[in-house]
Amino acid sequence: MSVLTYNWIMKRSQPPRRTQAERTRVSREKIIQSAIESFAQNGFRGAKMADIAKAANLTGPGLLHHFPSKTHLLMEVLKERDRVDSERMRATLQKSGKHFLDAGIELVEHNQTVPGLVQLFNLLVAESISPDHPAHEFFIERYQHGREHWVQAITQAQQVGEVRSDISPATLAVLIFAMMDGLQVQWLLQPENIDMPGLFRVLMNMLRSEAE
Amino acid sequence: MSVLTYNWIMKRSQPPRRTQAERTRVSREKIIQSAIESFAQNGFRGAKMADIAKAANLTGPGLLHHFPSKTHLLMEVLKERDRVDSERMRATLQKSGKHFLDAGIELVEHNQTVPGLVQLFNLLVAESISPDHPAHEFFIERYQHGREHWVQAITQAQQVGEVRSDISPATLAVLIFAMMDGLQVQWLLQPENIDMPGLFRVLMNMLRSEAE
Repeated sequence: MSVLTYNWIMKRSQPPRRTQAERTRVSREKIIQSAIESFAQNGFRGAKMADIAKAANLTGPGLLHHFPSKTHLLMEVLKERDRVDSERMRATLQKSGKHFLDAGIELVEHNQTVPGLVQLFNLLVAESISPDHPAHEFFIERYQHGREHWVQAITQAQQVGEVRSDISPATLAVLIFAMMDGLQVQWLLQPENIDMPGLFRVLMNMLRSEAE
Repeated sequence: MSVLTYNWIMKRSQPPRRTQAERTRVSREKIIQSAIESFAQNGFRGAKMADIAKAANLTGPGLLHHFPSKTHLLMEVLKERDRVDSERMRATLQKSGKHFLDAGIELVEHNQTVPGLVQLFNLLVAESISPDHPAHEFFIERYQHGREHWVQAITQAQQVGEVRSDISPATLAVLIFAMMDGLQVQWLLQPENIDMPGLFRVLMNMLRSEAE
């Protein structure tokens, strides 16, 4: 038996060992999950790094090894969540075709299944109004880009005659975003009383073209 | 000259001295103003009593003499501001008569003149979603009572034929509140780009009765 074969057999018989890169990835995921929960409950300003470390089974220095500050952690959480959300929105709007209004309702139906994330964004955007908040520019750009995607989809939906065309796509994009955000507030406060997708559907139906 | 007359002249010639009650009132007003600014910037969780005391030219113990905790101060700010706001809303809705939709737009026009207060409520309600937040019950009740007042006004506006009657007053009340809240977010982030009353007017016009 060559040395190489022996080494191969020994490796196979031991329990699989995670590589350093895998351990790092698992730790970062745990931290981000703890941070999402803490930011959603306490906001960025109220969240404490010590609590986030504890929830992720890490020491303070252990957490700082992965994320050197609370601001770094916040931006990582936002970028990661925004990437997932934006992809979902883009995919929904692109395949919406002649069913733009239904695609909008589907997005709200999806949001209803992830209350923790809705609460996270709702609280962080409210905090970020202050120009000294680390996510201030992030949220201004998030709304601008989001509205641009909706404007494209609304323009198409008006061209195919699904959406009323007496209101500009730019105006409708702001109103649709605003209704989503505003309904979230009342739904988060009283989830059992507020039928978020059902209420959003009422607005979508008002936007339907008379000719439909 | 009687002693009484002399006392009267002496009192008149001295600079007016504030009574204890007046001094207390002035201090409390200063504290509440500092607290509004701090809560609007940092939220309840991020605000520090030491900073609020400093902004009101008081020592820490001086502040605690008036408000024994940050929670007491928060509830005082909310009750005081809510009293003013609710009166304005009730007065507007009561006199709205056949002009419910215009009354709604006037409320949003007024909000545009007080961005600090809009930011205060926007951030505090977002924080208060957590059941352990001291204003959690306050905001649930605030929305419930607010919607009840709107339902009354909408019912009247439907009876006189101003507002479309194919959507229930309860549904319209949630949607109108949601649009107000949601537009505030985008307006607070980019006040120069978002014409809050103009955009709100677009929703109000969609609610106008066809028969009008």
